[in-house]
Amino acid sequence: MGPNPTALILRGDFRAAAATLTMIETQDPKARPILKRLYPHTGHAHIVGVTGAPGVGKSTLISGMTGELRKRKKTVGILSVDPSSPFTGGAILGDRVRMLQHSGDKGVFIRSMATHGGSGGVCGAVRDAVHLLDAMRRDVIFIETIGVGQDELDVSILAHTVVVVLNPSSGDAIQWMKAGLFEIADILVVNKTDLPGAEGMFQGLQGLFEDSAVAVFKTLAKDSDGISSLIDGLDKHRTAVLSDDSHAARQLHLCREQLLSLVREKIRSRLEKRMDPAVIDSLTERVAARTLDPYTAADQILKQAGLHEL
Amino acid sequence: MGPNPTALILRGDFRAAAATLTMIETQDPKARPILKRLYPHTGHAHIVGVTGAPGVGKSTLISGMTGELRKRKKTVGILSVDPSSPFTGGAILGDRVRMLQHSGDKGVFIRSMATHGGSGGVCGAVRDAVHLLDAMRRDVIFIETIGVGQDELDVSILAHTVVVVLNPSSGDAIQWMKAGLFEIADILVVNKTDLPGAEGMFQGLQGLFEDSAVAVFKTLAKDSDGISSLIDGLDKHRTAVLSDDSHAARQLHLCREQLLSLVREKIRSRLEKRMDPAVIDSLTERVAARTLDPYTAADQILKQAGLHEL
Repeated sequence: MGPNPTALILRGDFRAAAATLTMIETQDPKARPILKRLYPHTGHAHIVGVTGAPGVGKSTLISGMTGELRKRKKTVGILSVDPSSPFTGGAILGDRVRMLQHSGDKGVFIRSMATHGGSGGVCGAVRDAVHLLDAMRRDVIFIETIGVGQDELDVSILAHTVVVVLNPSSGDAIQWMKAGLFEIADILVVNKTDLPGAEGMFQGLQGLFEDSAVAVFKTLAKDSDGISSLIDGLDKHRTAVLSDDSHAARQLHLCREQLLSLVREKIRSRLEKRMDPAVIDSLTERVAARTLDPYTAADQILKQAGLHEL
Repeated sequence: MGPNPTALILRGDFRAAAATLTMIETQDPKARPILKRLYPHTGHAHIVGVTGAPGVGKSTLISGMTGELRKRKKTVGILSVDPSSPFTGGAILGDRVRMLQHSGDKGVFIRSMATHGGSGGVCGAVRDAVHLLDAMRRDVIFIETIGVGQDELDVSILAHTVVVVLNPSSGDAIQWMKAGLFEIADILVVNKTDLPGAEGMFQGLQGLFEDSAVAVFKTLAKDSDGISSLIDGLDKHRTAVLSDDSHAARQLHLCREQLLSLVREKIRSRLEKRMDPAVIDSLTERVAARTLDPYTAADQILKQAGLHEL
């Protein structure tokens, strides 16, 4: 990396951005000073979460939206936290976006982030990556994720707009609703309108959300059908959110939640450095043998780490 | 609740168990001494995680397995962490099991647990609930969960045997595989064999896992087809796990992970009590205004809480 990664990233240098993202992912402390200097330059991007079950076509949809945004001269950043795409198998998004990139388009920056390993770190890494892309002056940043119960990555505390993607074939709108997925949705997309049941599902959802702030769209992402309207819908939501009196309150809420998650991460990593593995091993053995209960053992670990008076 | 909930629970009293589970769910500190006294009586149950997307028929499958286990004179406990069932809408399991319960069968205890509210608390509450049901001498405890990326509830650190349920209709075995769901599976079940593609999917999975320790089953849970073989498969896995040299190591690993998650919960709740809301509000406002970066703000919160030297 060059002598001043912050300046390079602010200028939109892909290589410096990629190197810093790797540091973020591997929890390299050298990322921290860069992020601190980038932070004042954030706050411009429209951050859009795109969530839904595997196979609903999130990647194809993001690819289509990216093409449309490029036509509109907008720059795009994509963070794919869905492990099924784009580089570990979801070839469609990877290929299409790489095509754009290889054709010399510096308007699209894409990065996949690992969800495995490092429990608790996913949300923090994605949050930091969003800050970085925001400072790179991406107009729109997509965060792609399998959204079901993925509490570690609560996309609704990172994104201004949450898009939930559904398929008519799954026929499980009611199930997803029960699962709480609709609670975080600002925009619902029925993708794969070439499948039977699409129109019925679309109209059903429209009826259901008629009197709400939730907008419902239908797309056939692979043919780019409906994409332009969806982008209009994203813009409209962004505008509504910005003009809304409650916007400032919501922004503060997001900031607060992100700040608290950062505090928790810090405590956690420091704690792990303080704990004596030998003590933990010996307590674990006693708990496994049922000669000690885990609640008392946890108190003993805190004591050993000097945290019992906390 | 009676004068000695611990003794009542050990005797299998449903009312005392339910009251204590409510305390666990609401994070009432009065649950802790009860759990401490119950813990030495745990370690007998076969703990089985049942996971899969909404609508694959997890509830119906658990209902079927419960019926079969009752025929075999086994007692059953069910913890449903899937918000879509059983009491919030998944009527099938609720109704069937309530039928058993209402017919005077004290061999089945069922409880649904909320996944919303109280970030970080889900896994802890489920772990405590498993200990309680184990102390109640349930032979088999099912933990029902939507398993996708639900990091907060990592069922693989709670269960001896993880059953992943799939549908042929979803046609997305490959997608789930990419999503890492198969990594935690000990047993795969292709449910709804009356749907087209079931036999193909079953044979495909059998081929895929031929040389592995993963067993593949097919069921039509609503007609109880294949349930008896599946229960045999669960027993076989339990026996294999117990006779395996690596069993003790795995048990220790589970104990250790559970212990560490308990330590983290404790730190978290104590930290939250220590933080000054006014300080957090003022720092949040500065972060939102981009006059302060969140990393420096997090350090200031730690300092205010007296944890900067941690």
